[in-house]
Amino acid sequence: MGMRMLGVLGGMGPLASAEFMRRLTLLTPAERDQDHIPTLLLSDPRVPDRTAARLAGGEDPLPALLRGIRILEQGGAEAIVIPCNTAHGWYEEMQAATRLPILHIVDAAVRDLARQGIGAGQPIGVLATAGTLAMGLYQQRLSALGHPCLVPEEAEMRELVSPGIALVKANRVEDAYPPLAEAARRLHGRGAAAVVLGCTEIPLGIAAGPALPFPVVDSIEALARAAIAWARAEEEGR
Amino acid sequence: MGMRMLGVLGGMGPLASAEFMRRLTLLTPAERDQDHIPTLLLSDPRVPDRTAARLAGGEDPLPALLRGIRILEQGGAEAIVIPCNTAHGWYEEMQAATRLPILHIVDAAVRDLARQGIGAGQPIGVLATAGTLAMGLYQQRLSALGHPCLVPEEAEMRELVSPGIALVKANRVEDAYPPLAEAARRLHGRGAAAVVLGCTEIPLGIAAGPALPFPVVDSIEALARAAIAWARAEEEGR
Repeated sequence: MGMRMLGVLGGMGPLASAEFMRRLTLLTPAERDQDHIPTLLLSDPRVPDRTAARLAGGEDPLPALLRGIRILEQGGAEAIVIPCNTAHGWYEEMQAATRLPILHIVDAAVRDLARQGIGAGQPIGVLATAGTLAMGLYQQRLSALGHPCLVPEEAEMRELVSPGIALVKANRVEDAYPPLAEAARRLHGRGAAAVVLGCTEIPLGIAAGPALPFPVVDSIEALARAAIAWARAEEEGR
Repeated sequence: MGMRMLGVLGGMGPLASAEFMRRLTLLTPAERDQDHIPTLLLSDPRVPDRTAARLAGGEDPLPALLRGIRILEQGGAEAIVIPCNTAHGWYEEMQAATRLPILHIVDAAVRDLARQGIGAGQPIGVLATAGTLAMGLYQQRLSALGHPCLVPEEAEMRELVSPGIALVKANRVEDAYPPLAEAARRLHGRGAAAVVLGCTEIPLGIAAGPALPFPVVDSIEALARAAIAWARAEEEGR
Protein backbone atom coordinates (compact mmCIF):
# COMPACT_ATOMS: atom_id res chain seq x y z
CA MET A 1 0.00 0.00 0.00
CA GLY A 2 2.79 2.41 0.84
CA MET A 3 4.90 1.46 -2.14
CA ARG A 4 6.98 4.16 -3.74
CA MET A 5 6.34 5.30 -7.26
CA LEU A 6 8.51 4.29 -10.19
CA GLY A 7 9.00 6.79 -13.00
CA VAL A 8 9.36 5.57 -16.58
CA LEU A 9 10.85 7.90 -19.15
CA GLY A 10 9.49 6.22 -22.25
CA GLY A 11 8.12 6.52 -25.74
CA MET A 12 11.45 5.57 -27.29
CA GLY A 13 9.71 3.71 -28.83
CA PRO A 14 6.18 3.66 -27.49
CA LEU A 15 5.63 -0.06 -28.08
CA ALA A 16 8.72 -0.85 -26.02
CA SER A 17 7.34 1.29 -23.19
CA ALA A 18 3.99 -0.50 -23.32
CA GLU A 19 5.79 -3.83 -23.23
CA PHE A 20 7.89 -2.63 -20.29
CA MET A 21 4.67 -1.89 -18.38
CA ARG A 22 3.31 -5.33 -19.24
CA ARG A 23 6.47 -7.13 -18.12
CA LEU A 24 6.71 -5.05 -14.96
CA THR A 25 3.17 -6.11 -14.09
CA LEU A 26 3.52 -9.77 -15.03
CA LEU A 27 6.87 -10.20 -13.22
CA THR A 28 5.56 -8.64 -9.98
CA PRO A 29 4.28 -11.20 -7.48
CA ALA A 30 0.70 -10.01 -6.96
CA GLU A 31 -2.70 -11.24 -5.88
CA ARG A 32 -4.62 -8.02 -6.47
CA ASP A 33 -4.25 -4.52 -7.94
CA GLN A 34 -2.88 -3.12 -4.70
CA ASP A 35 0.18 -5.46 -4.77
CA HIS A 36 1.54 -3.86 -7.97
CA ILE A 37 4.10 -1.06 -8.23
CA PRO A 38 2.67 2.45 -8.67
CA THR A 39 4.19 3.80 -11.87
CA LEU A 40 4.19 7.05 -13.77
CA LEU A 41 5.04 6.56 -17.44
CA LEU A 42 5.77 9.45 -19.72
CA SER A 43 5.60 7.99 -23.20
CA ASP A 44 6.96 10.87 -25.25
CA PRO A 45 7.68 9.74 -28.79
CA ARG A 46 8.62 13.31 -29.73
CA VAL A 47 12.11 12.93 -28.23
CA PRO A 48 14.52 13.44 -31.15
CA ASP A 49 16.05 10.25 -32.55
CA ARG A 50 19.01 9.22 -30.38
CA THR A 51 21.04 7.45 -33.06
CA ALA A 52 20.59 10.30 -35.55
CA ALA A 53 21.81 12.74 -32.89
CA ARG A 54 24.92 10.69 -32.14
CA LEU A 55 25.90 9.69 -35.66
CA ALA A 56 24.39 12.15 -38.10
CA GLY A 57 24.33 15.52 -36.37
CA GLY A 58 20.58 15.25 -35.63
CA GLU A 59 18.79 17.30 -33.00
CA ASP A 60 20.06 16.82 -29.44
CA PRO A 61 17.55 14.73 -27.41
CA LEU A 62 18.90 15.88 -24.02
CA PRO A 63 16.54 18.86 -23.52
CA ALA A 64 13.49 16.63 -24.17
CA LEU A 65 14.90 13.93 -21.88
CA LEU A 66 15.42 16.46 -19.08
CA ARG A 67 11.90 17.88 -19.54
CA GLY A 68 10.59 14.35 -19.19
CA ILE A 69 12.55 13.75 -16.00
CA ARG A 70 11.11 16.95 -14.55
CA ILE A 71 7.54 15.74 -15.26
CA LEU A 72 8.28 12.42 -13.54
CA GLU A 73 9.84 14.18 -10.54
CA GLN A 74 6.90 16.55 -10.19
CA GLY A 75 4.45 13.65 -10.48
CA GLY A 76 6.01 11.94 -7.47
CA ALA A 77 8.39 9.36 -8.97
CA GLU A 78 11.19 8.22 -6.67
CA ALA A 79 13.36 6.36 -9.19
CA ILE A 80 13.58 6.44 -12.96
CA VAL A 81 13.98 3.78 -15.62
CA ILE A 82 14.36 4.47 -19.34
CA PRO A 83 13.30 1.63 -21.66
CA CYS A 84 15.58 2.84 -24.46
CA ASN A 85 19.18 1.70 -24.57
CA THR A 86 20.46 4.44 -26.88
CA ALA A 87 19.13 7.17 -24.57
CA HIS A 88 21.63 5.89 -22.01
CA GLY A 89 24.31 7.63 -24.07
CA TRP A 90 23.10 10.71 -22.15
CA TYR A 91 22.96 8.88 -18.80
CA GLU A 92 25.57 10.98 -16.99
CA GLU A 93 23.92 14.26 -18.00
CA MET A 94 20.49 12.99 -16.95
CA GLN A 95 21.72 11.57 -13.63
CA ALA A 96 23.54 14.83 -12.89
CA ALA A 97 20.26 16.70 -13.41
CA THR A 98 18.09 14.77 -10.93
CA ARG A 99 18.30 13.64 -7.33
CA LEU A 100 16.34 10.48 -8.27
CA PRO A 101 18.32 7.33 -9.01
CA ILE A 102 18.20 6.31 -12.68
CA LEU A 103 18.46 2.51 -12.92
CA HIS A 104 20.87 1.88 -15.82
CA ILE A 105 19.53 -0.49 -18.49
CA VAL A 106 22.99 -1.83 -19.37
CA ASP A 107 23.63 -2.74 -15.71
CA ALA A 108 20.26 -4.48 -15.70
CA ALA A 109 21.03 -6.43 -18.89
CA VAL A 110 24.49 -7.44 -17.70
CA ARG A 111 23.02 -8.62 -14.39
CA ASP A 112 20.62 -10.78 -16.39
CA LEU A 113 23.55 -12.67 -17.95
CA ALA A 114 24.53 -13.81 -14.44
CA ARG A 115 20.89 -14.70 -13.64
CA GLN A 116 20.95 -16.95 -16.70
CA GLY A 117 24.19 -18.58 -15.55
CA ILE A 118 26.42 -17.09 -18.24
CA GLY A 119 29.76 -16.57 -16.55
CA ALA A 120 32.64 -14.17 -17.17
CA GLY A 121 34.88 -15.07 -20.05
CA GLN A 122 32.07 -16.25 -22.29
CA PRO A 123 31.68 -14.29 -25.54
CA ILE A 124 28.52 -12.17 -25.72
CA GLY A 125 26.83 -10.90 -28.86
CA VAL A 126 25.18 -7.49 -28.81
CA LEU A 127 22.36 -6.37 -31.09
CA ALA A 128 21.67 -2.67 -30.71
CA THR A 129 21.21 0.54 -32.63
CA ALA A 130 24.15 1.97 -34.53
CA GLY A 131 24.19 4.76 -31.93
CA THR A 132 24.41 2.40 -28.94
CA LEU A 133 27.19 0.40 -30.62
CA ALA A 134 29.14 3.51 -31.65
CA MET A 135 29.01 4.79 -28.07
CA GLY A 136 30.25 1.39 -26.82
CA LEU A 137 27.57 1.28 -24.09
CA TYR A 138 27.59 -2.52 -23.95
CA GLN A 139 31.14 -3.22 -25.11
CA GLN A 140 32.67 -1.24 -22.21
CA ARG A 141 30.68 -2.96 -19.46
CA LEU A 142 31.02 -6.41 -20.96
CA SER A 143 34.77 -6.04 -21.46
CA ALA A 144 35.18 -4.82 -17.88
CA LEU A 145 33.52 -8.08 -16.79
CA GLY A 146 35.82 -10.17 -18.96
CA HIS A 147 33.34 -10.96 -21.74
CA PRO A 148 34.65 -10.84 -25.31
CA CYS A 149 32.08 -8.86 -27.27
CA LEU A 150 30.68 -9.62 -30.73
CA VAL A 151 28.74 -7.03 -32.71
CA PRO A 152 27.16 -7.16 -36.19
CA GLU A 153 29.22 -6.13 -39.19
CA GLU A 154 28.43 -2.86 -40.89
CA ALA A 155 26.53 -4.57 -43.72
CA GLU A 156 24.51 -6.56 -41.19
CA MET A 157 23.59 -3.36 -39.36
CA ARG A 158 22.49 -1.77 -42.63
CA GLU A 159 20.60 -4.79 -44.01
CA LEU A 160 19.25 -6.53 -40.92
CA VAL A 161 19.43 -4.71 -37.59
CA SER A 162 18.56 -1.10 -38.46
CA PRO A 163 15.68 -2.08 -40.79
CA GLY A 164 14.38 -4.53 -38.16
CA ILE A 165 14.30 -1.79 -35.52
CA ALA A 166 12.55 0.61 -37.92
CA LEU A 167 9.88 -2.01 -38.69
CA VAL A 168 9.03 -2.34 -34.98
CA LYS A 169 8.75 1.44 -34.66
CA ALA A 170 6.30 1.30 -37.59
CA ASN A 171 4.22 -1.36 -35.73
CA ARG A 172 5.32 -4.13 -38.16
CA VAL A 173 6.60 -6.59 -35.55
CA GLU A 174 6.06 -9.74 -37.62
CA ASP A 175 8.09 -8.31 -40.51
CA ALA A 176 10.83 -7.40 -38.05
CA TYR A 177 11.38 -10.99 -36.91
CA PRO A 178 13.29 -12.42 -39.90
CA PRO A 179 16.04 -9.77 -40.12
CA LEU A 180 16.48 -9.47 -36.34
CA ALA A 181 16.49 -13.23 -35.76
CA GLU A 182 19.00 -13.67 -38.60
CA ALA A 183 21.33 -11.06 -37.08
CA ALA A 184 21.12 -12.83 -33.70
CA ARG A 185 21.79 -16.23 -35.30
CA ARG A 186 24.89 -14.89 -37.02
CA LEU A 187 26.37 -13.63 -33.75
CA HIS A 188 25.65 -16.99 -32.17
CA GLY A 189 27.21 -18.70 -35.18
CA ARG A 190 30.40 -16.68 -34.63
CA GLY A 191 30.67 -17.94 -31.07
CA ALA A 192 28.41 -15.82 -28.86
CA ALA A 193 27.24 -17.83 -25.85
CA ALA A 194 24.33 -15.43 -25.49
CA VAL A 195 22.97 -12.47 -27.43
CA VAL A 196 21.92 -9.27 -25.68
CA LEU A 197 18.89 -7.63 -27.33
CA GLY A 198 20.29 -4.22 -26.47
CA CYS A 199 17.66 -2.04 -28.12
CA THR A 200 14.15 -2.20 -26.66
CA GLU A 201 12.57 -2.59 -30.11
CA ILE A 202 14.51 -5.81 -30.78
CA PRO A 203 12.82 -8.11 -28.23
CA LEU A 204 9.44 -7.04 -29.67
CA GLY A 205 10.48 -8.27 -33.10
CA ILE A 206 12.13 -11.42 -31.74
CA ALA A 207 8.95 -12.25 -29.76
CA ALA A 208 6.91 -12.25 -33.00
CA GLY A 209 8.41 -15.53 -34.23
CA PRO A 210 9.81 -18.87 -32.98
CA ALA A 211 12.05 -18.67 -29.92
CA LEU A 212 15.78 -18.58 -30.68
CA PRO A 213 17.64 -21.77 -29.73
CA PHE A 214 20.31 -20.01 -27.60
CA PRO A 215 20.22 -17.69 -24.58
CA VAL A 216 19.16 -14.10 -25.16
CA VAL A 217 18.99 -11.18 -22.75
CA ASP A 218 15.86 -9.11 -23.26
CA SER A 219 16.75 -5.58 -22.15
CA ILE A 220 13.06 -4.71 -21.53
CA GLU A 221 12.61 -7.66 -19.19
CA ALA A 222 15.97 -7.05 -17.50
CA LEU A 223 14.97 -3.46 -16.79
CA ALA A 224 11.61 -4.60 -15.39
CA ARG A 225 13.43 -6.99 -13.05
CA ALA A 226 15.72 -4.16 -11.92
CA ALA A 227 12.67 -1.96 -11.21
CA ILE A 228 11.00 -4.70 -9.18
CA ALA A 229 14.21 -5.22 -7.20
CA TRP A 230 14.30 -1.46 -6.50
CA ALA A 231 10.68 -1.43 -5.32
CA ARG A 232 11.26 -4.44 -3.08
CA ALA A 233 14.42 -2.93 -1.55
CA GLU A 234 12.54 0.31 -0.89
CA GLU A 235 9.78 -1.63 0.88
CA GLU A 236 12.25 -3.58 3.01
CA GLY A 237 14.24 -0.47 3.85
CA ARG A 238 11.32 1.18 5.59
CA MET B 1 5.43 16.64 -33.72
CA GLY B 2 3.02 19.11 -32.17
CA MET B 3 0.59 16.46 -30.97
CA ARG B 4 -1.20 17.04 -27.71
CA MET B 5 -0.64 14.80 -24.75
CA LEU B 6 -3.13 12.17 -23.66
CA GLY B 7 -3.45 11.44 -19.96
CA VAL B 8 -4.25 7.91 -18.79
CA LEU B 9 -5.58 7.42 -15.28
CA GLY B 10 -4.70 3.77 -14.89
CA GLY B 11 -3.55 0.94 -12.69
CA MET B 12 -7.11 -0.36 -12.28
CA GLY B 13 -5.76 -2.93 -12.98
CA PRO B 14 -2.18 -2.37 -14.07
CA LEU B 15 -2.21 -5.09 -16.74
CA ALA B 16 -5.21 -3.46 -18.39
CA SER B 17 -3.34 -0.16 -18.45
CA ALA B 18 -0.29 -1.77 -20.04
CA GLU B 19 -2.55 -3.38 -22.62
CA PHE B 20 -4.24 -0.03 -23.26
CA MET B 21 -0.82 1.48 -24.03
CA ARG B 22 -0.02 -1.41 -26.37
CA ARG B 23 -3.31 -1.11 -28.25
CA LEU B 24 -3.02 2.66 -28.44
CA THR B 25 0.38 2.24 -30.06
CA LEU B 26 -0.56 -0.59 -32.42
CA LEU B 27 -3.78 1.08 -33.60
CA THR B 28 -2.04 4.40 -34.37
CA PRO B 29 -0.97 4.74 -37.99
CA ALA B 30 2.77 5.33 -37.62
CA GLU B 31 6.03 4.99 -39.48
CA ARG B 32 8.35 6.13 -36.69
CA ASP B 33 8.37 7.05 -32.98
CA GLN B 34 7.44 10.64 -33.69
CA ASP B 35 4.09 9.66 -35.30
CA HIS B 36 2.76 8.22 -32.02
CA ILE B 37 0.61 10.01 -29.44
CA PRO B 38 2.48 11.48 -26.46
CA THR B 39 0.95 9.92 -23.38
CA LEU B 40 1.28 10.29 -19.64
CA LEU B 41 0.09 7.18 -17.80
CA LEU B 42 -0.38 7.14 -14.06
CA SER B 43 -0.67 3.47 -13.19
CA ASP B 44 -1.74 3.70 -9.57
CA PRO B 45 -2.89 0.30 -8.33
CA ARG B 46 -3.37 1.74 -4.83
CA VAL B 47 -6.76 3.24 -5.78
CA PRO B 48 -9.28 1.55 -3.45
CA ASP B 49 -11.35 -1.21 -5.05
CA ARG B 50 -14.26 0.35 -6.95
CA THR B 51 -16.71 -2.53 -6.66
CA ALA B 52 -16.05 -2.92 -2.92
CA ALA B 53 -16.70 0.81 -2.46
CA ARG B 54 -20.00 0.67 -4.32
CA LEU B 55 -21.38 -2.61 -2.97
CA ALA B 56 -19.70 -3.34 0.34
CA GLY B 57 -19.05 -0.01 2.04
CA GLY B 58 -15.33 -0.12 1.11
CA GLU B 59 -13.06 2.92 1.04
CA ASP B 60 -14.13 5.67 -1.37
CA PRO B 61 -11.82 5.72 -4.43
CA LEU B 62 -12.73 9.29 -5.41
CA PRO B 63 -9.95 11.09 -3.50
CA ALA B 64 -7.31 8.84 -5.11
CA LEU B 65 -8.90 9.31 -8.54
CA LEU B 66 -8.85 13.09 -8.12
CA ARG B 67 -5.20 13.04 -6.97
CA GLY B 68 -4.39 11.08 -10.12
CA ILE B 69 -6.19 13.57 -12.33
CA ARG B 70 -4.20 16.39 -10.71
CA ILE B 71 -0.90 14.61 -11.53
CA LEU B 72 -1.98 14.17 -15.17
CA GLU B 73 -3.05 17.82 -15.43
CA GLN B 74 0.21 19.06 -13.95
CA GLY B 75 2.18 16.79 -16.28
CA GLY B 76 0.62 18.44 -19.32
CA ALA B 77 -2.19 16.08 -20.34
CA GLU B 78 -4.96 17.66 -22.43
CA ALA B 79 -7.56 14.87 -22.26
CA ILE B 80 -8.02 11.92 -19.94
CA VAL B 81 -8.98 8.30 -20.46
CA ILE B 82 -9.53 5.79 -17.67
CA PRO B 83 -9.07 2.13 -18.66
CA CYS B 84 -11.35 0.90 -15.86
CA ASN B 85 -15.08 0.66 -16.44
CA THR B 86 -16.12 0.59 -12.78
CA ALA B 87 -14.24 3.84 -12.06
CA HIS B 88 -16.72 5.50 -14.44
CA GLY B 89 -19.26 5.24 -11.62
CA TRP B 90 -17.47 8.38 -10.37
CA TYR B 91 -17.37 10.00 -13.84
CA GLU B 92 -19.51 13.03 -13.03
CA GLU B 93 -17.48 13.89 -9.92
CA MET B 94 -14.21 13.51 -11.83
CA GLN B 95 -15.38 15.52 -14.83
CA ALA B 96 -16.66 18.26 -12.52
CA ALA B 97 -13.20 18.46 -10.96
CA THR B 98 -11.16 19.03 -14.12
CA ARG B 99 -11.26 21.29 -17.15
CA LEU B 100 -9.84 18.42 -19.28
CA PRO B 101 -12.29 16.28 -21.24
CA ILE B 102 -12.59 12.74 -19.88
CA LEU B 103 -13.40 10.37 -22.75
CA HIS B 104 -16.08 8.03 -21.38
CA ILE B 105 -15.29 4.32 -21.78
CA VAL B 106 -18.96 3.33 -22.09
CA ASP B 107 -19.46 5.82 -24.94
CA ALA B 108 -16.37 4.33 -26.60
CA ALA B 109 -17.65 0.76 -26.20
CA VAL B 110 -21.11 1.62 -27.47
CA ARG B 111 -19.58 3.37 -30.49
CA ASP B 112 -17.67 0.17 -31.20
CA LEU B 113 -20.94 -1.75 -31.59
CA ALA B 114 -21.81 0.51 -34.51
CA ARG B 115 -18.28 0.13 -35.95
CA GLN B 116 -18.88 -3.62 -35.94
CA GLY B 117 -22.23 -3.18 -37.69
CA ILE B 118 -24.43 -4.15 -34.76
CA GLY B 119 -27.52 -2.02 -35.10
CA ALA B 120 -30.06 -0.71 -32.61
CA GLY B 121 -32.62 -3.23 -31.45
CA GLN B 122 -30.16 -6.10 -31.28
CA PRO B 123 -29.75 -7.61 -27.80
CA ILE B 124 -26.32 -6.99 -26.22
CA GLY B 125 -24.72 -9.01 -23.44
CA VAL B 126 -22.61 -7.22 -20.87
CA LEU B 127 -19.82 -8.79 -18.82
CA ALA B 128 -18.60 -6.42 -16.13
CA THR B 129 -17.82 -6.17 -12.44
CA ALA B 130 -20.66 -6.45 -9.96
CA GLY B 131 -20.11 -2.74 -9.27
CA THR B 132 -20.46 -1.70 -12.91
CA LEU B 133 -23.59 -3.80 -13.32
CA ALA B 134 -25.15 -2.54 -10.08
CA MET B 135 -24.58 1.05 -11.19
CA GLY B 136 -26.20 0.26 -14.55
CA LEU B 137 -23.38 2.00 -16.47
CA TYR B 138 -23.94 -0.08 -19.59
CA GLN B 139 -27.60 -0.93 -19.20
CA GLN B 140 -28.64 2.76 -19.22
CA ARG B 141 -26.73 3.69 -22.39
CA LEU B 142 -27.66 0.54 -24.24
CA SER B 143 -31.34 0.88 -23.37
CA ALA B 144 -31.31 4.50 -24.51
CA LEU B 145 -30.06 3.25 -27.88
CA GLY B 146 -32.78 0.62 -28.10
CA HIS B 147 -30.64 -2.41 -27.25
CA PRO B 148 -32.18 -5.01 -24.95
CA CYS B 149 -29.49 -5.79 -22.40
CA LEU B 150 -28.47 -9.21 -21.03
CA VAL B 151 -26.33 -9.57 -17.92
CA PRO B 152 -25.05 -12.65 -16.07
CA GLU B 153 -27.15 -14.17 -13.32
CA GLU B 154 -26.02 -13.75 -9.75
CA ALA B 155 -24.61 -17.28 -9.57
CA GLU B 156 -22.70 -16.68 -12.82
CA MET B 157 -21.21 -13.50 -11.39
CA ARG B 158 -20.12 -15.36 -8.26
CA GLU B 159 -18.80 -18.48 -9.99
CA LEU B 160 -17.50 -17.20 -13.33
CA VAL B 161 -17.17 -13.45 -13.84
CA SER B 162 -15.87 -12.18 -10.48
CA PRO B 163 -13.33 -15.03 -10.09
CA GLY B 164 -12.19 -14.51 -13.71
CA ILE B 165 -11.54 -10.82 -13.09
CA ALA B 166 -9.65 -11.60 -9.87
CA LEU B 167 -7.45 -14.12 -11.70
CA VAL B 168 -6.39 -11.46 -14.22
CA LYS B 169 -5.54 -9.05 -11.41
CA ALA B 170 -3.36 -11.82 -9.94
CA ASN B 171 -1.55 -12.18 -13.33
CA ARG B 172 -3.20 -15.59 -14.03
CA VAL B 173 -4.63 -14.73 -17.45
CA GLU B 174 -4.70 -18.32 -18.80
CA ASP B 175 -6.69 -19.50 -15.79
CA ALA B 176 -9.10 -16.61 -16.33
CA TYR B 177 -10.06 -17.70 -19.83
CA PRO B 178 -12.37 -20.67 -19.08
CA PRO B 179 -14.73 -18.91 -16.64
CA LEU B 180 -14.85 -15.63 -18.60
CA ALA B 181 -15.35 -17.36 -21.96
CA GLU B 182 -18.08 -19.54 -20.43
CA ALA B 183 -19.89 -16.47 -19.10
CA ALA B 184 -19.71 -14.82 -22.54
CA ARG B 185 -20.96 -17.98 -24.26
CA ARG B 186 -23.96 -18.16 -21.95
CA LEU B 187 -25.01 -14.57 -22.77
CA HIS B 188 -24.67 -15.36 -26.45
CA GLY B 189 -26.66 -18.55 -25.93
CA ARG B 190 -29.48 -16.48 -24.40
CA GLY B 191 -29.68 -14.32 -27.51
CA ALA B 192 -26.98 -11.64 -27.28
CA ALA B 193 -25.89 -10.55 -30.77
CA ALA B 194 -22.63 -9.29 -29.26
CA VAL B 195 -21.02 -9.31 -25.84
CA VAL B 196 -19.41 -6.20 -24.38
CA LEU B 197 -16.31 -7.01 -22.31
CA GLY B 198 -17.15 -4.14 -19.99
CA CYS B 199 -14.36 -4.56 -17.46
CA THR B 200 -10.82 -3.99 -18.68
CA GLU B 201 -9.56 -7.21 -17.07
CA ILE B 202 -11.99 -9.34 -19.09
CA PRO B 203 -10.45 -8.87 -22.59
CA LEU B 204 -7.07 -9.88 -21.11
CA GLY B 205 -8.51 -13.20 -19.98
CA ILE B 206 -10.49 -13.70 -23.20
CA ALA B 207 -7.33 -13.06 -25.27
CA ALA B 208 -5.56 -15.93 -23.49
CA GLY B 209 -7.60 -18.63 -25.29
CA PRO B 210 -9.35 -19.36 -28.59
CA ALA B 211 -11.31 -16.46 -30.09
CA LEU B 212 -15.03 -16.50 -29.30
CA PRO B 213 -17.27 -17.33 -32.31
CA PHE B 214 -19.47 -14.22 -31.96
CA PRO B 215 -18.84 -10.46 -31.91
CA VAL B 216 -17.32 -8.99 -28.76
CA VAL B 217 -16.57 -5.39 -27.86
CA ASP B 218 -13.23 -5.03 -26.12
CA SER B 219 -13.53 -1.97 -23.88
CA ILE B 220 -9.72 -1.51 -23.84
CA GLU B 221 -9.52 -1.40 -27.62
CA ALA B 222 -12.63 0.79 -27.89
CA LEU B 223 -11.08 3.30 -25.50
CA ALA B 224 -7.82 3.29 -27.48
CA ARG B 225 -9.80 4.02 -30.66
CA ALA B 226 -11.56 6.91 -28.90
CA ALA B 227 -8.20 8.32 -27.78
CA ILE B 228 -6.78 8.12 -31.30
CA ALA B 229 -9.90 9.87 -32.66
CA TRP B 230 -9.40 12.62 -30.05
CA ALA B 231 -5.73 13.07 -31.00
CA ARG B 232 -6.58 13.20 -34.70
CA ALA B 233 -9.36 15.76 -34.16
CA GLU B 234 -6.98 17.89 -32.11
CA GLU B 235 -4.42 17.79 -34.90
CA GLU B 236 -6.98 18.72 -37.54
CA GLY B 237 -8.46 21.45 -35.39
CA ARG B 238 -5.19 23.39 -35.26
